[in-house]
Amino acid sequence: MRMTAQDARRRFASVHVARLATITPAGRPHVVPITFAVDGELIYTAVDAKPKSTTDLQRLRNLRASPQVALLADHYSSDWSELWWARADGQAAVLDQPGAMLEPIRLLAQRYAQYRLHPPGGPVIAITVRRWSGWCASPAS
Amino acid sequence: MRMTAQDARRRFASVHVARLATITPAGRPHVVPITFAVDGELIYTAVDAKPKSTTDLQRLRNLRASPQVALLADHYSSDWSELWWARADGQAAVLDQPGAMLEPIRLLAQRYAQYRLHPPGGPVIAITVRRWSGWCASPAS
Repeated sequence: MRMTAQDARRRFASVHVARLATITPAGRPHVVPITFAVDGELIYTAVDAKPKSTTDLQRLRNLRASPQVALLADHYSSDWSELWWARADGQAAVLDQPGAMLEPIRLLAQRYAQYRLHPPGGPVIAITVRRWSGWCASPAS
Repeated sequence: MRMTAQDARRRFASVHVARLATITPAGRPHVVPITFAVDGELIYTAVDAKPKSTTDLQRLRNLRASPQVALLADHYSSDWSELWWARADGQAAVLDQPGAMLEPIRLLAQRYAQYRLHPPGGPVIAITVRRWSGWCASPAS
């Protein structure tokens, strides 16, 4: 059954990994797992401080060409009555000024112990959610 | 560290849920969780027999407009030394002839007990993988 926007946001915010889908400059779909924090109608994710490969930077190149994103959180179980997913469709901005990254990185550090020890160097991707949607096999637990 | 194509395929095939990223006719990214079976350089996923909502059919509309897809499998753990992801980039074809769906649905039924009881009605999405890639925090377990 479909979820309300409120339920979708609640479920999305309950897990520790989501997937960020973007479009490459060549027009192909691209998808990577991300850590994130939800703050109202905003979702934040950061690029880690560790040395970057071209793979890691692909998402930033994609966002410069097209800011439209879709993010997915899901739950799998061999008991299919427990399945659910929640999606956020929105528009991304890349934040690289220290002042703008402060609050997102604070929220990320609240959720992930690793970020308290080693704050991500950034940049931060800030997604303004246009639509929350979702589906669950059975009513919310 | 980066994974070889072989490792990425092995890791991808080891889990029971992946995410299918496509592009909508309007040019936005779209992403849904899928069950799947890997057969060499092919990945199969099926549309379930249960009544479809417009949400479920969006992936088929997208593929008719653009067959390019990206699929992601990932593993999250609060111990970040266990993190990994594997991605398959490729091109999708929609199979709706009973003869063409037979082998994909047999492979899906091997992996998922639910499909042995209730085979998906189809159509089947068959993805020809152009590139396997992946990343793991520490050498393969």
